[in-house]
Amino acid sequence: MSGNSFGKLFCVTSFGESHGAGIGCVVDGCPPGLELSEADIQPELDRRKPGTSKYVTQRKEADQVEILSGVFEGKTTGTPIAMLIRNTDQRSYDYAKIAQVFRPNHADYAYIQKYGIRDHRGGGRSSARETAVRVAAGAIARKYLRQRLGIEIRGCVEQVGDIVCAIRDWDAVNANPFFCADPARVPELEALIDQLRSEGDSIGARLYVEARNVPPGLGEPVFDRLDADIAQALMSINAVKGVEIGDGMAVAGMRGTAHRDELTPQGFLANHSGGISGGISTGQSIVARYAIKPTSSITTPGQSIDETGAATSMRTTGRHDPCVGLRATPIGEAMLALVLMDHFLRNRAQNADVVPATPRIPGEI
Amino acid sequence: MSGNSFGKLFCVTSFGESHGAGIGCVVDGCPPGLELSEADIQPELDRRKPGTSKYVTQRKEADQVEILSGVFEGKTTGTPIAMLIRNTDQRSYDYAKIAQVFRPNHADYAYIQKYGIRDHRGGGRSSARETAVRVAAGAIARKYLRQRLGIEIRGCVEQVGDIVCAIRDWDAVNANPFFCADPARVPELEALIDQLRSEGDSIGARLYVEARNVPPGLGEPVFDRLDADIAQALMSINAVKGVEIGDGMAVAGMRGTAHRDELTPQGFLANHSGGISGGISTGQSIVARYAIKPTSSITTPGQSIDETGAATSMRTTGRHDPCVGLRATPIGEAMLALVLMDHFLRNRAQNADVVPATPRIPGEI
Amino acid sequence: MSGNSFGKLFCVTSFGESHGAGIGCVVDGCPPGLELSEADIQPELDRRKPGTSKYVTQRKEADQVEILSGVFEGKTTGTPIAMLIRNTDQRSYDYAKIAQVFRPNHADYAYIQKYGIRDHRGGGRSSARETAVRVAAGAIARKYLRQRLGIEIRGCVEQVGDIVCAIRDWDAVNANPFFCADPARVPELEALIDQLRSEGDSIGARLYVEARNVPPGLGEPVFDRLDADIAQALMSINAVKGVEIGDGMAVAGMRGTAHRDELTPQGFLANHSGGISGGISTGQSIVARYAIKPTSSITTPGQSIDETGAATSMRTTGRHDPCVGLRATPIGEAMLALVLMDHFLRNRAQNADVVPATPRIPGEI
Amino acid sequence: MSGNSFGKLFCVTSFGESHGAGIGCVVDGCPPGLELSEADIQPELDRRKPGTSKYVTQRKEADQVEILSGVFEGKTTGTPIAMLIRNTDQRSYDYAKIAQVFRPNHADYAYIQKYGIRDHRGGGRSSARETAVRVAAGAIARKYLRQRLGIEIRGCVEQVGDIVCAIRDWDAVNANPFFCADPARVPELEALIDQLRSEGDSIGARLYVEARNVPPGLGEPVFDRLDADIAQALMSINAVKGVEIGDGMAVAGMRGTAHRDELTPQGFLANHSGGISGGISTGQSIVARYAIKPTSSITTPGQSIDETGAATSMRTTGRHDPCVGLRATPIGEAMLALVLMDHFLRNRAQNADVVPATPRIPGEI
Repeated sequence: MSGNSFGKLFCVTSFGESHGAGIGCVVDGCPPGLELSEADIQPELDRRKPGTSKYVTQRKEADQVEILSGVFEGKTTGTPIAMLIRNTDQRSYDYAKIAQVFRPNHADYAYIQKYGIRDHRGGGRSSARETAVRVAAGAIARKYLRQRLGIEIRGCVEQVGDIVCAIRDWDAVNANPFFCADPARVPELEALIDQLRSEGDSIGARLYVEARNVPPGLGEPVFDRLDADIAQALMSINAVKGVEIGDGMAVAGMRGTAHRDELTPQGFLANHSGGISGGISTGQSIVARYAIKPTSSITTPGQSIDETGAATSMRTTGRHDPCVGLRATPIGEAMLALVLMDHFLRNRAQNADVVPATPRIPGEI
Repeated sequence: MSGNSFGKLFCVTSFGESHGAGIGCVVDGCPPGLELSEADIQPELDRRKPGTSKYVTQRKEADQVEILSGVFEGKTTGTPIAMLIRNTDQRSYDYAKIAQVFRPNHADYAYIQKYGIRDHRGGGRSSARETAVRVAAGAIARKYLRQRLGIEIRGCVEQVGDIVCAIRDWDAVNANPFFCADPARVPELEALIDQLRSEGDSIGARLYVEARNVPPGLGEPVFDRLDADIAQALMSINAVKGVEIGDGMAVAGMRGTAHRDELTPQGFLANHSGGISGGISTGQSIVARYAIKPTSSITTPGQSIDETGAATSMRTTGRHDPCVGLRATPIGEAMLALVLMDHFLRNRAQNADVVPATPRIPGEI
Repeated sequence: MSGNSFGKLFCVTSFGESHGAGIGCVVDGCPPGLELSEADIQPELDRRKPGTSKYVTQRKEADQVEILSGVFEGKTTGTPIAMLIRNTDQRSYDYAKIAQVFRPNHADYAYIQKYGIRDHRGGGRSSARETAVRVAAGAIARKYLRQRLGIEIRGCVEQVGDIVCAIRDWDAVNANPFFCADPARVPELEALIDQLRSEGDSIGARLYVEARNVPPGLGEPVFDRLDADIAQALMSINAVKGVEIGDGMAVAGMRGTAHRDELTPQGFLANHSGGISGGISTGQSIVARYAIKPTSSITTPGQSIDETGAATSMRTTGRHDPCVGLRATPIGEAMLALVLMDHFLRNRAQNADVVPATPRIPGEI
Repeated sequence: MSGNSFGKLFCVTSFGESHGAGIGCVVDGCPPGLELSEADIQPELDRRKPGTSKYVTQRKEADQVEILSGVFEGKTTGTPIAMLIRNTDQRSYDYAKIAQVFRPNHADYAYIQKYGIRDHRGGGRSSARETAVRVAAGAIARKYLRQRLGIEIRGCVEQVGDIVCAIRDWDAVNANPFFCADPARVPELEALIDQLRSEGDSIGARLYVEARNVPPGLGEPVFDRLDADIAQALMSINAVKGVEIGDGMAVAGMRGTAHRDELTPQGFLANHSGGISGGISTGQSIVARYAIKPTSSITTPGQSIDETGAATSMRTTGRHDPCVGLRATPIGEAMLALVLMDHFLRNRAQNADVVPATPRIPGEI
């Protein structure tokens, strides 16, 4: 109820602080018989981990995952899969000076009002470091979804400040530190980050994520709509302030004749709805976008208050990403995988008997 | 698990179809001792109900709510509050002709793939009529939040197609059928809806909702962030395709120096974050926006398939809103109320003992 | 969270008070395509309902159930099934005199300490009348379990005071008002109840319930064991104070060589474990027992306190069962059905792919 | 949903196998500000751990707990508390020979039918070793309940085979390896266990657990009754087959005049109901009993089948307790603590505002 679990049937319970002993999670509900080892998870963690290029935080974390349970002789057993990532490169002294001060746009002030106590080291629980365990859990979901259902999930950056990146080449995404599918934009992105660092500033980003080959029928019609759960999942990523499905916010300006996705026996004629209708997947690709605010930790001084409520001026030093959005692509992919996995199991629970009389039309578009 | 319940401690379980016996809900977890009768709920239902102006669907529903349980001698008892709204103006014959055809952009096709069966009358469970029970449940939450905590929730329309409505006069909102706070725009809106009806088309909308006087400390730091739960809540409203908190999608283009909300002993200097930081309320106003796609039911014919999978052309007649967004303001308000109520109770469970050493700074901005 | 819902995937949310407008429930998660009408539910309600013989309370309730949603053209649609039973024979004046007094062994005092308010009419929410909705929901589960899995659930009374009833003739159970499978004991039971009524006293009972043809594999290994969930289910019935699975409390005196159920290819050699091992069904019959305390409402005066805390003496008049256990057999059957249905769906969610290499051995014993 | 979490607001998620890397749990929902370190938990683990006397299994496990998160500078922060106990003394070779055979009365056969795969080493997930993490989590709950509410929880053995142990001296309980409060019975218990070991047999036990100083008002009136949740909690302990609250199964033979607990301004006159009425605590002591079946792993050969379904004879060697009940007292105490902690938080969420007009009467009896 304190909100550290995600998913109902494929349930991830996250724990750990940025500068404590480590972070980890328990994945409950994974079907038995899935081949699984750390080697399935580590590559995804490596995509997200800090210190991999000069454009992100210089904290060096191995992010080495250990599977503690739930796997026997290389296969999942249907019991909880616990995973642990020890913290190794904490420099808590960086944070000593902010122990009594609230950083603007951070959760510090809200935490103290809520809990009366906080682990100030690196944001403690509210650190984006927590998202590593989502990526780890998501890797399990992705493997299952790919193997059993052929679902493929992928994401990339679409916008950083004024730089808009098209989706031109999916193969390029993992070949640059920005998850950019538009190789021509990479030099601009590099220059922007360098400039921000020198100016003591930061920048926002918009990310794209999609899932292909999703079968129709996933999701629920009222509160736990597939799009609603995706919105919750993406908005729960640190610093996300907006989520769109399909045409997103732009639908406010569209007409019904332009927006609707007509159906033919050969498939859908468009995908304005982002693969979800009435909260249920249609078989079209699931398409979502999320916007991440600029990093709050910047070296330009700002006004704030301290723990006694007195005015102060502060600048956040330490090791930070000028654009937290740059490392968030794997997180969005992971969250989408977790939502789809959960709804796959939920749908199977209720509807495993269903044999629709109507043939499926091709979904991909 | 089939997703008809919303909230964990203030839990609304919704039931009913558009053209069945009725719709209703059970509200579980309401604190005892709240003065409550149908008179507290009916006015909110009346704001949402169909048939109130020529700009919305002409279905005439009294939307008369009956409280079946949980209230004794005018006060809540702490036991489940069941509410029932009988359907009265079903014209199911309007729907007979679509019994074997899937309407584009409707959940029809997804339903048949999921359940193998569907109540085609008026969209059945996926009808926006279901949202009436959310408004009813939200009315209870709003009363509690107002009385005990002084929280005020209000919303309005900000955009319909190309027409942008400013927030100039909150008193005007309930004085026009569009929930428009910009009275000068009302004639334009009237003309647009008239034109759409004559053209057999529909239009999208963007709505705004805010909560004022929210205490700091509501929300959870990881998955069940206050903003994530608001995103889920708003995206679960029929036809919503995008949700924004604070500056929303625009943060992708912003710099950290521009976005951050500095703190002073006299209050926050800005509210770019929409009142939520790290998933927890800060005491600033909670600010959210949601975009609603154009009504899918339009009289312009479109391509589709029938239940055998064969191609067909169809136009949706019946009684429909040219802009479903026009009646969605009370729904967004209700959903926001439900989220806040739930998080208020959740926070109280864990943190009732907390006495923060740091004084609260003024939140409103 | 206020505990008015039961089950995770086949979830029943109960509402209503003994002397309010009515009682009812919402059943969420029922698979689509099950043929269902009130005619499937009413007979079960009729077995439990009051006023059917002179041995039980003389309150006359039709207990007429109305299905409000979730069924279309005679079949479940996969959406929530709401059911409503209007109260018709409330004599609230019977209760006026206990409005300011706490009845011993009733929840009255505990309610006032918890909620500060209570609906004193007929016990309000804590009335055994609430169990009618469990029977209604259970009827749906039973139909599904029978049709799709061949599971049969049945129960009977085993003990009332000093009278022990053997299981001799299952056909006799519904032919007497005591759910007694030992016809020779019926006259004794009649005499006992008559005597208790004249003496202003009441008596306890022990009931038996079993499920046959349960497939192996239902249940979970740790907290949500099948036996643990059955224990919760049966103990949640009003006035139940003990629950046993298989050999029950007697295992404390048994040796391992006597207790263990040996396995052979032709089946199990015994069923001491009541069909559950390690929290998971084995294919043997599920066997449970539950003990119900004597009715607390008796006409023999007893010491109590009033709402100001002052001493008083009170006797409960009104219409009461001398043995509440006499009507509890259908409730136990219903609760067992709900647990099995829920675990069937839960197991299907996670393990639908499983094809065990080991053949099933005959379970029944 | 796979049932590895317990509690709704104070939620324990358990993981780990008997012979894997380790066992552990995540405790979510603990209020912030509680002083906590491993030193609060280790003593409870030491009470339960194996190898402490010759009367229990000779497996030597240090059961050393490490707190991984949720505690900062000696206090809980309100974030998840993860705990890890590494396994150290696995002798998996003991189990190699049972890899293809199902042990009678064990979950082996049920597991293979459910999951199609099992970790056969030491029972894997169904090992009683898992209960160590319940004891660890329970230690946190107990500390909170004691410090903030003055609630004291304690338990002892009441019966082992034919030996009945009275509650004569609570101080004796931790001074003998049987948790026996009747010192005169200890030599008999020692002799019985020695005899069973030499005979290759095992024995059942009945345990007692109570909570004193519980405030009235904890629990919910319908499904999540306090007694129902205690029943679920205790029945979820390995090998438990019966649970009783207050007078338990004996109520079947009692009369209402004998059973009822009359109220006076000076307190209750009896405690037949075990401190719970209508599912809600009354302020009397909470009293429960649970019966544990004899250890299934015995050296007397028994009939069984192997993984191909063929008949076999088997005897379980390895290191086992002749009476698993002997180490179960701390587990029952822990489970009771978890239930009370959860209901304390649940009650606080809904009813923190309640100020009952009626004074509390003394509860203890």
